[in-house]
Amino acid sequence: MASLEGSDDRSARLIALDWGTTSLRAYLLGDAGSVLESRSESWGIMQLPAGGFAEAFRLVTRDWRSRFTDLPAIASGMVGSAQGWFEVAYCAAPAGVDALARSLAQVPAGPLSIVPGIAQIGDAPNVMRGEETQIVGAIALAPELSARSLLVLPGTHSKWARVQDGEVRDFTTFLTGELFGVLSAHSILGRFARDSTARPDQDTAVRAFERGVLAARGSVAGMAPMLFSARSLVLARQLEPEASLDYLSGLLIGEELRCGLATGEMPSALIGEATLCG
Amino acid sequence: MASLEGSDDRSARLIALDWGTTSLRAYLLGDAGSVLESRSESWGIMQLPAGGFAEAFRLVTRDWRSRFTDLPAIASGMVGSAQGWFEVAYCAAPAGVDALARSLAQVPAGPLSIVPGIAQIGDAPNVMRGEETQIVGAIALAPELSARSLLVLPGTHSKWARVQDGEVRDFTTFLTGELFGVLSAHSILGRFARDSTARPDQDTAVRAFERGVLAARGSVAGMAPMLFSARSLVLARQLEPEASLDYLSGLLIGEELRCGLATGEMPSALIGEATLCG
Repeated sequence: MASLEGSDDRSARLIALDWGTTSLRAYLLGDAGSVLESRSESWGIMQLPAGGFAEAFRLVTRDWRSRFTDLPAIASGMVGSAQGWFEVAYCAAPAGVDALARSLAQVPAGPLSIVPGIAQIGDAPNVMRGEETQIVGAIALAPELSARSLLVLPGTHSKWARVQDGEVRDFTTFLTGELFGVLSAHSILGRFARDSTARPDQDTAVRAFERGVLAARGSVAGMAPMLFSARSLVLARQLEPEASLDYLSGLLIGEELRCGLATGEMPSALIGEATLCG
Repeated sequence: MASLEGSDDRSARLIALDWGTTSLRAYLLGDAGSVLESRSESWGIMQLPAGGFAEAFRLVTRDWRSRFTDLPAIASGMVGSAQGWFEVAYCAAPAGVDALARSLAQVPAGPLSIVPGIAQIGDAPNVMRGEETQIVGAIALAPELSARSLLVLPGTHSKWARVQDGEVRDFTTFLTGELFGVLSAHSILGRFARDSTARPDQDTAVRAFERGVLAARGSVAGMAPMLFSARSLVLARQLEPEASLDYLSGLLIGEELRCGLATGEMPSALIGEATLCG
């Protein structure tokens, strides 16, 4: 794509990497953060190619760096954790884009800067790596979120973050996605679905999911006494066995909503890939 | 032990089996349910010896049945489930000892009766197999529980059962033990303990456990936003990595207590092995 070279308004300015546990996403950015090109590899920090971090970085950025010399590169996510390429100390909350930018760390002998995560200190310690960059990006796209907002970042480890004056003040982590994964694969709640080759049709799946969301969301004490219903409803022939995981997924997300909304504060925005947010 | 024979007050009356998913416990009972002998095998319904149910039964009862002829045998637990020796239909709640006795089922061509479980019908369907027998036993030992009580049976799948007029009226299942198992073995919350060869000393373990119980028990919305603290407290050096599973265990049990006690009704008794109840 040599045609990009010399094109003033589409000149590449930065390589940005979203480098997490299970995937590496790379973006070639132009002016004002416009995405010129992107690619995705399965080289999360737990499944690197031979040659490790340096080789993964070289391969995913090779042609961009040969076409545009002296292009800076920046990464966020678990690549900055103790299991990553280079451990970058967390910024203490409250922290915004200025504090994060001041604490960018250079990979030793590497052509890459890594964005620090944010740590919440105190009685309810908590950490994020990667989500701080999504939040900075969301605020850049929607400046009205800066003054005061509650942002929800769904995923394996969902984050609910309160932003004030452009800074992440405090946040909560829900293991929603990971709970679904381990319960589906390893608990008795996944057995009906594991033993069945049938998949529910879309309507059945959506109905089971919504039923789970409403059950957990509307409960007084929460999901714990209800988890077993992903099995007992099937035994009582009130739920299709092949839809039991859709119901379980609903229960877990309903519980996240119930707890996240318990303060009465309403979320301002959902941040993440469209499929996740959907 | 031929000396038992002929001893009137210690004569064997019944073989009783507690036959669950992971173990088979056998008791030789005398008058008034006194335990004359007992043994335990790892032949739960998921790990039977060659020869299956019949062979496991033959081996575990062999010398008793040769010493005492025509001894009846009775079993409770998952042996009566669809995955067991012979599926026995649930009694519908409310059900007490009379209904259970009327619905005992004989294993075809087998020398064994199986106690049915109890099913709660309706909007919150639920099932128990084995716990109904523990409850009947508890009421026999402590008749004051019969009129009205809330009984807690901790375990892999904890049950909280309301008894009224000698019958199990309704009950709740908590996956407390199973959640601990799958999260310890398969989630990020177990990683510190899995990576560590150190075991916490008793004091540290108890302190971490109690901290978890209090955190979940005293929370407003429940454990879901707190689960990640089994990791983040370690990252913040507020919890020993090797005690993180003790803390997680406390969180899960604290959550069970928070939900179970949400109605304001206080449990009357804990039923189970001393180690579990401890």
